[in-house]
Amino acid sequence: MLKIPKDQVAGHRAVDGKLGPLIDDSGCFYKPLQGDERGSNEVVFYTSFSSNTRIPDHIRKFFPKFHGTRLVESSDASGLKPHLVLQDLNFGRSNPSVMDIKIGSRTWGPQAPERYIQKCMKKDRETSSIPLGFRLSGLQIYETKTSGMWKPWKKSVQALSADDVKLLLRKFVSSNTSGVLDSEPDCSFASIVYGGSSGILAQLLELKAWFEDQTMYCFYSCSILMMFESELASNGKNPRAEIKLIDFAHVFEGEGVIDHNFLGGLCSLIKFIREVPAEKHSYPENGATQCS
Amino acid sequence: MLKIPKDQVAGHRAVDGKLGPLIDDSGCFYKPLQGDERGSNEVVFYTSFSSNTRIPDHIRKFFPKFHGTRLVESSDASGLKPHLVLQDLNFGRSNPSVMDIKIGSRTWGPQAPERYIQKCMKKDRETSSIPLGFRLSGLQIYETKTSGMWKPWKKSVQALSADDVKLLLRKFVSSNTSGVLDSEPDCSFASIVYGGSSGILAQLLELKAWFEDQTMYCFYSCSILMMFESELASNGKNPRAEIKLIDFAHVFEGEGVIDHNFLGGLCSLIKFIREVPAEKHSYPENGATQCS
Repeated sequence: MLKIPKDQVAGHRAVDGKLGPLIDDSGCFYKPLQGDERGSNEVVFYTSFSSNTRIPDHIRKFFPKFHGTRLVESSDASGLKPHLVLQDLNFGRSNPSVMDIKIGSRTWGPQAPERYIQKCMKKDRETSSIPLGFRLSGLQIYETKTSGMWKPWKKSVQALSADDVKLLLRKFVSSNTSGVLDSEPDCSFASIVYGGSSGILAQLLELKAWFEDQTMYCFYSCSILMMFESELASNGKNPRAEIKLIDFAHVFEGEGVIDHNFLGGLCSLIKFIREVPAEKHSYPENGATQCS
Repeated sequence: MLKIPKDQVAGHRAVDGKLGPLIDDSGCFYKPLQGDERGSNEVVFYTSFSSNTRIPDHIRKFFPKFHGTRLVESSDASGLKPHLVLQDLNFGRSNPSVMDIKIGSRTWGPQAPERYIQKCMKKDRETSSIPLGFRLSGLQIYETKTSGMWKPWKKSVQALSADDVKLLLRKFVSSNTSGVLDSEPDCSFASIVYGGSSGILAQLLELKAWFEDQTMYCFYSCSILMMFESELASNGKNPRAEIKLIDFAHVFEGEGVIDHNFLGGLCSLIKFIREVPAEKHSYPENGATQCS
């Protein structure tokens, strides 16, 4: 009954008998609990967040719905194992273009064990996290019915330069990404996907306004997932562009301080997206914070 | 003719025959060039910035005026040495309260030598830079004509907790900071110093709006200086509250990316100041960016 999600772009995958997340037919995503404190920490976060009455609804919508934990047969056939039961974020979308962006120039919290800090610091310096304030963890871009989906190797996108990230953010919303490899992306979906009163930029600005104020959580090593449907955009329909936050194994309490590390990376991402060419006036101002 | 500035709260001081900055009677501040690349880097920055036509006037006002370099007799009597000639930021103020805040959770740029990075990283982790996104480098708070100026040891303010920083930001704008040590700060100057359309918060928000957009410079290890005159505030007069950026020995080119490290720390500082109690509606909204 459970199957391997086809639109997962980062993290461990449940292929070839390995351990990874599964989905069902009703819109649930089963994420195996990591055996160490990461698993329990993520359960603690989802439990705290889902019952936290100080989270406004317009922010809660950026997080996957949480349906508790459940024992299910794990993808590596090692028997019944505890899984987080979450919303399958791409349920109902056919062939979505997806980008997974790990936010923050620092992926570790000061409370972490020294060995873990050293490991993260090394990776943050080797990838684009330190220079750009975020790194791509994975992506897939829908090309055409015939050419299919382009899914670059994870390793190849983590350490991109600013210019290469700009190019990928343009390709992500272009209709001419297949075929000639060195063709200039046309950015024909930029206005409809990134822009507008409910597009990805407006959503990121709404999230930013909350991060300027909230001191409840620090989201280390957490990702923003950006998704939309190219085929809808091509047909002039609403492409269902959406952002969601995922991966909360390293979330800690904020202790009265805003998450300046996440916020800085988020502002950097916003600036990158702003630089993708779009029709005049389609991008909201930095001060605008309410999505319609 | 040159003398030791009395309102310097951080950095090397020109006392007891040591090398440090000097001032004259006409409003100039003479900062000795550090002998290594820090000195030349700061000259490069001031030269680039002062001739950069892309800096709007409402941002340029947050930087000290630059009058070139000059050979002057150094304070350690080692002869004529090259000095940066800058605006004396406290010229004309008697008894200003001053706070020097080093912005950013990371004080090093990826281009720096490995040994320097390791040294900075250690200090960032030992102080409040990593948890808060900034650290206090020094401060002085005017108490009363009789009790004088309170100037805590530099070492004692660099590693403060969030709660202690909040307390200092309250004391900074209180009229009852002297005398009984455990008295609750009255924050009676909060509205007039932090608040209002031209107060410190409005200025910080103006700076923030620029940092959300500018990709010309990365300001590692740079400080924001906050200054005002308590005596004026006590007499119901405009306390001349002002912020300035200082210390540009570690500024690098932005290379197409915003300075997410500085911006994150700046947003954290803004949130801390917002939490200082003030009269209703005296603080500007986060979206407001124009000082009157």
